[in-house]
Amino acid sequence: MNLIPELIERFTAIVGEKYALRDIQDIEPYLVEPRDKFGGKTSLVLRPAHVEEISAILRLATETGTAIIPQGGNTGLVGGQVPDESGNQIILSLSRLNAIRSIDTSGNLAIVEAGVVLQKLQGAAEQAGRLFPLSLGSEGSCQIGGNLSSNAGGTAVLAYGNTRELCLGVEVVLPTGEILNDLRTVKKDNTGYDLKDLFIGAEGTLGVITAAVMKLFPLPKGKGVAYAGLASPGDALKLLSLAQTHAGSSLTGFELMPRIGVEFSVAHTDGVRDPLQQPHNWYVLIDISSSRSAEDARETIEAILTEAFEAGLVEDATIAESTAQEKSFWHMREAMSEAQKPEGGSIKHDISIPVARIPDFIAEADASVLDLIPGARIVSFGHMGDGNLHYNISQPVGADKQAFLDRWVEVNKRVHDIVRAYKGSISAEHGIGQLKRKELFETKSPVALDLMRRIKKSFDPAGIMNPGKVI
Amino acid sequence: MNLIPELIERFTAIVGEKYALRDIQDIEPYLVEPRDKFGGKTSLVLRPAHVEEISAILRLATETGTAIIPQGGNTGLVGGQVPDESGNQIILSLSRLNAIRSIDTSGNLAIVEAGVVLQKLQGAAEQAGRLFPLSLGSEGSCQIGGNLSSNAGGTAVLAYGNTRELCLGVEVVLPTGEILNDLRTVKKDNTGYDLKDLFIGAEGTLGVITAAVMKLFPLPKGKGVAYAGLASPGDALKLLSLAQTHAGSSLTGFELMPRIGVEFSVAHTDGVRDPLQQPHNWYVLIDISSSRSAEDARETIEAILTEAFEAGLVEDATIAESTAQEKSFWHMREAMSEAQKPEGGSIKHDISIPVARIPDFIAEADASVLDLIPGARIVSFGHMGDGNLHYNISQPVGADKQAFLDRWVEVNKRVHDIVRAYKGSISAEHGIGQLKRKELFETKSPVALDLMRRIKKSFDPAGIMNPGKVI
Repeated sequence: MNLIPELIERFTAIVGEKYALRDIQDIEPYLVEPRDKFGGKTSLVLRPAHVEEISAILRLATETGTAIIPQGGNTGLVGGQVPDESGNQIILSLSRLNAIRSIDTSGNLAIVEAGVVLQKLQGAAEQAGRLFPLSLGSEGSCQIGGNLSSNAGGTAVLAYGNTRELCLGVEVVLPTGEILNDLRTVKKDNTGYDLKDLFIGAEGTLGVITAAVMKLFPLPKGKGVAYAGLASPGDALKLLSLAQTHAGSSLTGFELMPRIGVEFSVAHTDGVRDPLQQPHNWYVLIDISSSRSAEDARETIEAILTEAFEAGLVEDATIAESTAQEKSFWHMREAMSEAQKPEGGSIKHDISIPVARIPDFIAEADASVLDLIPGARIVSFGHMGDGNLHYNISQPVGADKQAFLDRWVEVNKRVHDIVRAYKGSISAEHGIGQLKRKELFETKSPVALDLMRRIKKSFDPAGIMNPGKVI
Repeated sequence: MNLIPELIERFTAIVGEKYALRDIQDIEPYLVEPRDKFGGKTSLVLRPAHVEEISAILRLATETGTAIIPQGGNTGLVGGQVPDESGNQIILSLSRLNAIRSIDTSGNLAIVEAGVVLQKLQGAAEQAGRLFPLSLGSEGSCQIGGNLSSNAGGTAVLAYGNTRELCLGVEVVLPTGEILNDLRTVKKDNTGYDLKDLFIGAEGTLGVITAAVMKLFPLPKGKGVAYAGLASPGDALKLLSLAQTHAGSSLTGFELMPRIGVEFSVAHTDGVRDPLQQPHNWYVLIDISSSRSAEDARETIEAILTEAFEAGLVEDATIAESTAQEKSFWHMREAMSEAQKPEGGSIKHDISIPVARIPDFIAEADASVLDLIPGARIVSFGHMGDGNLHYNISQPVGADKQAFLDRWVEVNKRVHDIVRAYKGSISAEHGIGQLKRKELFETKSPVALDLMRRIKKSFDPAGIMNPGKVI
């Protein structure tokens, strides 16, 4: 059942003809999501410019029982930002709310609208002599509102935290159209329930985040990025401990990569090459930020590697000699997910487990997956310092892609059962969306699910906010 | 109306005779709160030992509509932990849930029960070679459950965050008696709404926190504590900026104190003396923690002071030469609130404002208060690095104490109006409790209050959890 013309007219009147997309060609880009797993339909995409227009949209949606699907940069990996097949859900694009309202270098804060592209905020902060540390593969197109709604993680969580920790306050339009202005700029405020953190990570199911106060940090005075080849995840764990001892809070990244991931990145990504001469089973990227000086960063990273060589933890290593080389080391890591595509189907997992258990987990999960699918190529890489792995599995060479992908749920269950046994999370940073909704119901305690349902019902009685996602 | 005997019997049966206090002398200590502002009555204090007993208590309370007042170390400053005058509210003491269940040095985590005294956790962490950074004046008696329920701040927020930021997971008994086990030990987990942060800072109005996973940190390898005399809050602000530039995340404390506060502490606290020879209008305590070495901490603090002297920001300064001296510098600061008592009545404020506005705020608020009460002695001290001041006002010398205290609400309004104009918080770290409930209703937006009420109603339909507090 598509939206009836009268309803389309009423929503269109709020944003104006120009910003109410109804032509299928205009709508198409809003329906295609990065993994091509979730198609959907709609006959209307609304592109409001102001919080008041969003308020009017949600008020009308609640009045008429119309489902609203908020969408930022459309980079989400769990299908949280696309409508279902019914055709009667409206996409609400935040992309025109794209102003950086202010940057306050004395308070180290930026007030930004939801549609600001992450890279734009990073750049604006840097121009003001500050760091906005959130950094993701999709930073060129993802938006702050989506980052907040999914509590995005990325490569700098180790030192700076998730998006949740980078946010001081939010402005949210509730499903009823009411506007919650909680754009606080003070760090300490114990005046009642923590509403902000309910909206962060709720994936647009409780309201629409329209603006936020984000924390800025001093720009590091020096960076150091090293790339090391190792024998095993166990050695990587020891290296992590050593790096933490030497660098403390200066350790701003610690990424684990397997040989096969490096091979894929090198084979399928322009400009990526293996910085080490010999192949190694595993690799670690170490990122250091010094608040003191470039020499200090260099000394720290050299001290880590020297001790690691002496302890036999590292087989070979190289330190980036320029900013360009630092970027290329990171590019290798960031290209790894995309580089799986030319290798056929890939079954993904975004899991976290206690850091100290990572070597055991990898051994156990690898054996279990290979038992299930002999020849599967396991590309388990990611934010080891946070206990967060992208435990991705590329199809066996020559296997039928669709037949492999048809086993997605079965493989997920196998891997997630091990994650659950390790008391880990089945969604460390990507969220639930549509992809993991069924599994959330199986994983989360009934008490927690019940509380989530109570919150959802009391915030969104008409059930219009991103239905079919999360809860 | 007191509790009927049959009800007392049923609650008593859950914890056993020995742990159901009914004798007025046994009950008395649970009714007296630190500021003597909120008296109350009860005929029953329950001291359960296990989460299951708490579950049974709350189930019975919901069934019978009996109000439950959770109490930790009874150190709260806003009357959140004491019953009202009706006599029909039961105090639920958490003090027997006092086990540190585990300390995990590889994961840097401690799993602790709600009744663990803060100082005990600090000590256990230190014995394991780790730091639990939360530190408050009342750390010898306050408990982790109360710290979480009030989202306690204290002196280490600048580097380590509030209690909220130190907590990874919680176990909570809901008003219905259901147990939410969310004792997660992974840092990244994006699986649904952030329930944990709803209970943290809810002051026991949504459920009873019974256990938590708290973060530990590496012990600093070196400390440096300096005490400086300055001319003005404006100079203190510049000194803060300078300290942040030099120390970065090693700046673990930056406290502002006025001359009168130092005089009170020296006059009324055993073992406290002014470390500087001449009097100064203002003082700052700087605390540095180095992850590298004692020398590094010393060098950092010397570099800060050297530059501060050169810039004319500091009139005199001294660096602690021993751990004992570090403690005595801190003791001066921590005794300041208590040292107001012998000076007569004190009207308190726990406010935060954007850090850069502190000098303006102090000037404006001082003028306004002195206009209202000539001769009032303003003792505005606190966590300047967090924008959080305890803007306390001691009565004029020789004034009538009660007549002065009777102006509490009037003075609060005067000060808080200025706080609101500066977009600050009227409760930075102590919470709302009973003390600021009315003002919360006047300060918070109707939309936020409505959301809080919806949450309260959906979590606690019978209204048994700490009624009359917060919302």
